[in-house]
Amino acid sequence: MAMFSAEILSVGNELLSGITINTNAHWISKKITEAGGFVKRITVIRDDINEISLVVKESLARKPNWLLISGGLGPTYDDKTLQGVGFGLGVELVLDNTAVEMLRKSYAQRSVNYELNEIRLKMARIPMGSIPIQNPVGNAPSVLIDTGETKIVCLPGVPKEMEAIFLENILPQIKKIIGNFHTSESSYEIIGVSEAMLAPTLSKIVETNPPDLIYLKTHPQGYTSDNIPRLRVQILSKGKDKSEVEKRYKTISNMLVEEIHRLGGKIL
Amino acid sequence: MAMFSAEILSVGNELLSGITINTNAHWISKKITEAGGFVKRITVIRDDINEISLVVKESLARKPNWLLISGGLGPTYDDKTLQGVGFGLGVELVLDNTAVEMLRKSYAQRSVNYELNEIRLKMARIPMGSIPIQNPVGNAPSVLIDTGETKIVCLPGVPKEMEAIFLENILPQIKKIIGNFHTSESSYEIIGVSEAMLAPTLSKIVETNPPDLIYLKTHPQGYTSDNIPRLRVQILSKGKDKSEVEKRYKTISNMLVEEIHRLGGKIL
Repeated sequence: MAMFSAEILSVGNELLSGITINTNAHWISKKITEAGGFVKRITVIRDDINEISLVVKESLARKPNWLLISGGLGPTYDDKTLQGVGFGLGVELVLDNTAVEMLRKSYAQRSVNYELNEIRLKMARIPMGSIPIQNPVGNAPSVLIDTGETKIVCLPGVPKEMEAIFLENILPQIKKIIGNFHTSESSYEIIGVSEAMLAPTLSKIVETNPPDLIYLKTHPQGYTSDNIPRLRVQILSKGKDKSEVEKRYKTISNMLVEEIHRLGGKIL
Repeated sequence: MAMFSAEILSVGNELLSGITINTNAHWISKKITEAGGFVKRITVIRDDINEISLVVKESLARKPNWLLISGGLGPTYDDKTLQGVGFGLGVELVLDNTAVEMLRKSYAQRSVNYELNEIRLKMARIPMGSIPIQNPVGNAPSVLIDTGETKIVCLPGVPKEMEAIFLENILPQIKKIIGNFHTSESSYEIIGVSEAMLAPTLSKIVETNPPDLIYLKTHPQGYTSDNIPRLRVQILSKGKDKSEVEKRYKTISNMLVEEIHRLGGKIL
């Protein structure tokens, strides 16, 4: 395949009010990037059925290979992701027998004898035609929906639960689609060279390399006490062919180091 | 005014590849929420002119009071925010004299004698009709654009620079629009009560209170070693009238504490 693209949709009021930092989107992005995929967009919205439905439709119109949704699968009033996704897809929620069995299995591990009442069964009402995935850490099953062009997966918002399901079930599927993938990278800490000074060389490197196979970024780190600029430069080469990846990395890295020295900069 | 709404647009490949965690969006959300506003959506996209332009147009169509953009104001090849915003608004970028003076002032503070060359002047090419804001920490000026229904501000991606400009220039404007605002909140750590057990009471409270003035959220914290559920419950009451805010907070808090005890839970 040409390029594996993903979008992430994070659902939760707490992510929009400065209560919780969106570590889930960061963690998922990292895993997908390391596997050789591209996350093209992250969207964060509130626990609102119409809003979720709308964003799912917007995302599907952009045709990512995967849409990874996290948050809103639990039993409380503000867990609305499955309703939103179902509404967006024009699909009813149905009580899924496999999902009910998954809940039973989860609750059997707890010390208290939980009744599988209406409130808990809410977590097993999933969009018709979707596939539930056992939650090995918490209770709410994940849900996988194949829309044809895009696979949607609804993951829990609790990081430990999301990570366990992603690593066990989702990442292997994504890796299988992408196939072999290699990276070569490093990061330099520099003083005495500013972003603006390095800009022409960065532009030259970027213009002469395939944009999907290199990543080059300067991060200004402020100034030293005597007002000399501090900069972090990241170099990443990636692709399916290991020797090409390494060759490209070395060429870029040498060009940059040479230019940093020419400009009078120091690499720490 | 009825409700102050904001959207955040974070621009940067590093936010979509798991390199940098989006602390800027989290920080801005917190400040706006504390002032009494609502962040309705956070979007994270790559450094791509078309993509930035598209997302700006999508956001303006939803008519938030403010659209806060961070990242992509620097001098390097991948700093494309102003081009993207200009393109989205159908407005040309022009070399702004005030912005040039701001750059001159910023660079005058550095120990090295920087030439204001074409690469550095890129930071003073701003969408026609917009207002530059001095960057008190770094170099790239911020840019304020009043589109009528929505005010757009483009902030730097470097957290220290973004925070300084936001606190000095943007937050006072937002606070002035919102006016008086009070909050009363707390968070309980509970063992022995699960989300599902509390769900009916949470629903009842939410149904009988104005949705914009309370915030009630359960955060499952996994299980104790003997498999007893751990839960964090957050209660927040907010609004313009201090005594009403406090009264509402006490009522909700009492209802919850009572129910937690009735269910056999312990508050830590």
